[in-house]
Amino acid sequence: MGETVKYLLDETRIPKEWYNIVADLPQPPAPPLHPGTKQPVGPADLAPLFPPELILQEVTAERQVPIPEPVRALYRQWRPSPLIRARRLEAALDTPARIYFKYEGVSAPGSHKLNTAVAQAFYNKEAGIRRLTTETGAGQWGSSLAYAGTLFGLEVKVFMVRASFNQKPYRKAMMEVWGANCVSSPSNETEAGRRVLAEMPDTSGSLGIAISEAVEIAAQNADTNYALGSVLNHVLLHQTVIGLEAIEQFAMADDYPDIVIGCTGGGSNFAGLVFPFLGAQLRGGRTVQAIACEPAACPTLTRGRYAYDFGDTGHLTPLVKMHTLGSTFIPPGFHAGGLRYHGMAPLVSLVQELGLIESRAFHQTACFEAAVQFSRTEGIVPAPECSHAIRAVIDEALRCKRDGVAKTIAFNLSGHGHFDMQAYLDYFAGKLQDRDYDAAMLDAALAGLPVVAA
Amino acid sequence: MGETVKYLLDETRIPKEWYNIVADLPQPPAPPLHPGTKQPVGPADLAPLFPPELILQEVTAERQVPIPEPVRALYRQWRPSPLIRARRLEAALDTPARIYFKYEGVSAPGSHKLNTAVAQAFYNKEAGIRRLTTETGAGQWGSSLAYAGTLFGLEVKVFMVRASFNQKPYRKAMMEVWGANCVSSPSNETEAGRRVLAEMPDTSGSLGIAISEAVEIAAQNADTNYALGSVLNHVLLHQTVIGLEAIEQFAMADDYPDIVIGCTGGGSNFAGLVFPFLGAQLRGGRTVQAIACEPAACPTLTRGRYAYDFGDTGHLTPLVKMHTLGSTFIPPGFHAGGLRYHGMAPLVSLVQELGLIESRAFHQTACFEAAVQFSRTEGIVPAPECSHAIRAVIDEALRCKRDGVAKTIAFNLSGHGHFDMQAYLDYFAGKLQDRDYDAAMLDAALAGLPVVAA
Repeated sequence: MGETVKYLLDETRIPKEWYNIVADLPQPPAPPLHPGTKQPVGPADLAPLFPPELILQEVTAERQVPIPEPVRALYRQWRPSPLIRARRLEAALDTPARIYFKYEGVSAPGSHKLNTAVAQAFYNKEAGIRRLTTETGAGQWGSSLAYAGTLFGLEVKVFMVRASFNQKPYRKAMMEVWGANCVSSPSNETEAGRRVLAEMPDTSGSLGIAISEAVEIAAQNADTNYALGSVLNHVLLHQTVIGLEAIEQFAMADDYPDIVIGCTGGGSNFAGLVFPFLGAQLRGGRTVQAIACEPAACPTLTRGRYAYDFGDTGHLTPLVKMHTLGSTFIPPGFHAGGLRYHGMAPLVSLVQELGLIESRAFHQTACFEAAVQFSRTEGIVPAPECSHAIRAVIDEALRCKRDGVAKTIAFNLSGHGHFDMQAYLDYFAGKLQDRDYDAAMLDAALAGLPVVAA
Repeated sequence: MGETVKYLLDETRIPKEWYNIVADLPQPPAPPLHPGTKQPVGPADLAPLFPPELILQEVTAERQVPIPEPVRALYRQWRPSPLIRARRLEAALDTPARIYFKYEGVSAPGSHKLNTAVAQAFYNKEAGIRRLTTETGAGQWGSSLAYAGTLFGLEVKVFMVRASFNQKPYRKAMMEVWGANCVSSPSNETEAGRRVLAEMPDTSGSLGIAISEAVEIAAQNADTNYALGSVLNHVLLHQTVIGLEAIEQFAMADDYPDIVIGCTGGGSNFAGLVFPFLGAQLRGGRTVQAIACEPAACPTLTRGRYAYDFGDTGHLTPLVKMHTLGSTFIPPGFHAGGLRYHGMAPLVSLVQELGLIESRAFHQTACFEAAVQFSRTEGIVPAPECSHAIRAVIDEALRCKRDGVAKTIAFNLSGHGHFDMQAYLDYFAGKLQDRDYDAAMLDAALAGLPVVAA
């Protein structure tokens, strides 16, 4: 049976610049709008939440953005991450396809989220900020910001979606190991939280609510900023280290992907791997088939509308143009807490509108089946989020087998599942349900989208 | 602040041979004895449990034992593991010491145990064995053998100490992901288990009991062998890839350790790092100060007797000469399940008798304090077992600071703590107790050691 091969880069090969796909797109992204005036927001509107450098990165059209040396130095704790040829999985599938994965679970918090957490903490520290607030669903982002905060001596306060907070005490433990304060959302610490608790005391919470809480505190305190773990342009920008490294590693392997695959919640791990390949394509390089994989229970890219919407439930954020299920949409329960957001990164939404990527939705049982098959060949137990990508990878590899075509498939294994083992226990116990979203709720949520003049 | 530096070896530099310290010791190890005749056991006595190749490795005096190519090929999934210079920890301690750690948590099960699990599964498969049985305490070994079994198409049955089985359902989940069958020990599936359950239905179990159960099944079934995760010579042999790689990595760093440190439960992660350095010393190279770190609640090396004893509670195993607290000794509760064994590897015991290593015992609260300090600088959340090594590392680094001496300290970070976060929660909640062992129980256990003619 073929054995695993790792493609490792030397630390000196950590990228010196992030890649900004805006520079290569045929049209600029639609501007975020002020929720009151519905006019494009300016830097002053964002200044209560973000440091100047991140506001600049949010709007820049420069192709390359330098990575500050202190951030690169910290990247050395876990980067470059390995690109791994999954030859045992290939053999198990008996496929002519070549399967590679970029493994981001090597960071201390166990996912790609640390790539942007370290950068955001750095810029906030430079700007004299003392404290960061954020939300977290599955806990990967909250853990990452907690650790990044420790590295730069910043206090970190995390609002964790109540359902996850109760299901995953060990993610909270990890945040405490790194010195952060993690509370269940909705909480009594914010007006947004108290309002929800008054209306729905038994709510399981949502990312939209937790964002409202974190934003509220940041907006009210001059020494406090807000940090977001996905969706925004600057977050996707920071994640491009993944794809930039992968391009170098494919050169080492003397190969190049025909298909690139990632799961999509807010869109950052997908963009991190895929955008550098799309950029090469847009500049005249080889075409890649890019596939975004999402849960059928929260089908933002496959069923959402491309429209202006709020990023949060409390409607404190700017309006951004994206694929959205509506900010009041709440998905049914499933085990990939990182894929429960009602919206999608505006840049991922735009590249889908431009026909540069496609999207697919999967039910969770089929995803766990794929994750277990992966674990039994390549060892790593994937995060439930990543199981969506693996489902698509295996589907494509089996299609190659049927068609007798030897395509090269690359995917982002953005994190491990060590804090998600209850999901695997439920899978083995036959307790997983493949629930669909509530169609009436989706209709209502879409009908309630804010009206924005064309 | 100084930043982390990783020393990475290319996959071609995975050792081609394991290192056997027996070849360099001034005296041979004492032979294992048959529990009935109290005469040295021969290969025929071990054949019901182990494949021929492992029996040979158990007794060989050859300095180098070739690593089979299929095992090296599998090692490539996670080896060579990184040697990391912990410069952020050094800076936080304000010490002139240089601190390095070899990180074995990069394996899929998250610890060094996979180094020997893969080798043992390979030799058993070669010998035509269909199934392996084993015990596990903390779950690192059971997980590793589960994964190794999957790689070679072997069934794996794991008896997990009841206390751990109940506290750590996610380790069991991991074993199931890899297709193994994991049951709580004592179980009703063996005579040894039923006997204990009849006498002590509420027992929390022990490694000694779980070993008896696993050995019983292997001894009764021709297609089934037993696998042990520590203690035995061949297990320590397989772990020497750790130290062999580290020696190469120190050459890359243009440095060499003055002090090498590891935690000791059965002794294999300690020996894996330390024996290659001791071997170099014994062959005329530089002297290293080697420190074995154990829990004060189970102080095998610091308080045990160097004597022949059983490896298990049911007295099915051969008698081996080792530091032991007596096979009836049961330590009080503490959070490092991997360090609860009553005995110690005969080879680790021997090198202590020869004055080649020293040992220290620590209470758990001081260990968790050290682990949290490590996490907040180097990111990785250590397994509670490793926190004992980290305590000694920080103590030595602070001693260097007091003495104004710039020593080089190396330790084995043998696994991460992702499945041990309850222990961290308990630590932060102030719930940890620094319990000592029961002195009367120790006296009784030592008084009950088997009588062996000198």
